[in-house]
Amino acid sequence: MDRITSRKNPNIVRIRRLSSDRDFRYSCGEYVCEGMTLLEEARCANAEITMIIWNGDYEIPRCDVKEQYEVPPELYDYVSPLKNSPGPLFSVKMPVHDTQESIASAIILENVQDPGNVGTVIRTANAFDIGSVVLTGSCADQYNIKAVRASMGAVFRQRTDRVELGSLRDFAGFNSLRLCAAELSDEAEDIRVIDCSRCAFAVGNEGNGLSRELMDICDIKVIIPMSPHAESLNAAIAAGILMWEVRRQEK
Amino acid sequence: MDRITSRKNPNIVRIRRLSSDRDFRYSCGEYVCEGMTLLEEARCANAEITMIIWNGDYEIPRCDVKEQYEVPPELYDYVSPLKNSPGPLFSVKMPVHDTQESIASAIILENVQDPGNVGTVIRTANAFDIGSVVLTGSCADQYNIKAVRASMGAVFRQRTDRVELGSLRDFAGFNSLRLCAAELSDEAEDIRVIDCSRCAFAVGNEGNGLSRELMDICDIKVIIPMSPHAESLNAAIAAGILMWEVRRQEK
Repeated sequence: MDRITSRKNPNIVRIRRLSSDRDFRYSCGEYVCEGMTLLEEARCANAEITMIIWNGDYEIPRCDVKEQYEVPPELYDYVSPLKNSPGPLFSVKMPVHDTQESIASAIILENVQDPGNVGTVIRTANAFDIGSVVLTGSCADQYNIKAVRASMGAVFRQRTDRVELGSLRDFAGFNSLRLCAAELSDEAEDIRVIDCSRCAFAVGNEGNGLSRELMDICDIKVIIPMSPHAESLNAAIAAGILMWEVRRQEK
Repeated sequence: MDRITSRKNPNIVRIRRLSSDRDFRYSCGEYVCEGMTLLEEARCANAEITMIIWNGDYEIPRCDVKEQYEVPPELYDYVSPLKNSPGPLFSVKMPVHDTQESIASAIILENVQDPGNVGTVIRTANAFDIGSVVLTGSCADQYNIKAVRASMGAVFRQRTDRVELGSLRDFAGFNSLRLCAAELSDEAEDIRVIDCSRCAFAVGNEGNGLSRELMDICDIKVIIPMSPHAESLNAAIAAGILMWEVRRQEK
């Protein structure tokens, strides 16, 4: 295994850019993950690992990836976006999902900006066999290193789609899904009395909920009934409960 | 309003210590919160605000709290645990809940170490009228500044209890609650067929689940059924779904 000692090494530059620059990630079709647990998950999911950077301060296990480098701990701290991480850091090809394959359920996130929430939703969707996690508007990137970590590797397996607001109705139509807006309003129907089969539930931003534009194109509005003194649920919790309803009703 | 300019000022020392030192928090019976939203929540909830530190770089609204200080931005950045925060930072008295009042439901967290998860569970419990969030083992402190933020102010209103593992059965007995362990095992009963009234659901650590000791004292084991290829749910999501089941079945 080669050892890298310079910050200017092209592999170091590349990994740093992949973890900080979203456009670069998409132009390369690769993203960066950190830690042994995720590395094992990536291998189990047959994700295509393109490079591994090992922290020289820790034991390095055998691994059959072609491009592997060891770096001294100071350089590791420089290249890693996390503090004091034992590593490793590795790059992976983005999964390719067949968008022509029809799905039976979906969760739509609009403008959900916390990568931890996006990753948690992907993890939950994977656990409940939801067809796709659809990101619209200015959501955090699902390949942001914090989103990948929160997904606990579900990002290697779960189908996700980026769909523009203007194409959501076509997306729903193609998959024969009802668009359902999660909304805190009196007009919204109680989720407990809704048939959750063939639904795409849309959950909005942490602070502002769904946009007017998205609500206007939805077929129905649904509400998770809460205590009158509570203002709202965390976006990942609201999405989790909606996905659980899909799963629960399948019984 | 007085202006503080020295890092050695006793109020600055006190606020810093309240935000970083858990034992100090409990010896004072106070904790620290940050931001206008939480300040408004604290006032709505009639929390006893003991001191406010304003960031001099931002506009300071009128507020009827007795002890208020303005500090220059550099000093604000020094005293605040958050980066580039507009503030304010304020200290609040811990709420006192009547532990002799009987509750009809509870969520128990064991060794949940992420303060964001603890705060999110408190927020969800408040939304679903859960009697208490019970912390056992080495959970993150609910008065950690990150937990308070994730709770979105629910910590001002939601009853929480610290209960030692050895006292959990007494706690459940006093409140006539069944102790239910959330466990990923084949013996566990599907949550969809369980009567969730008068239950205290216990959810374990992000990595390891519940301890053997806690499982052994539970009345039943329950499982949230998942896809066979998924390993687990985020602790706050699992707790959220269990609390939702309590709420949902109340219909």
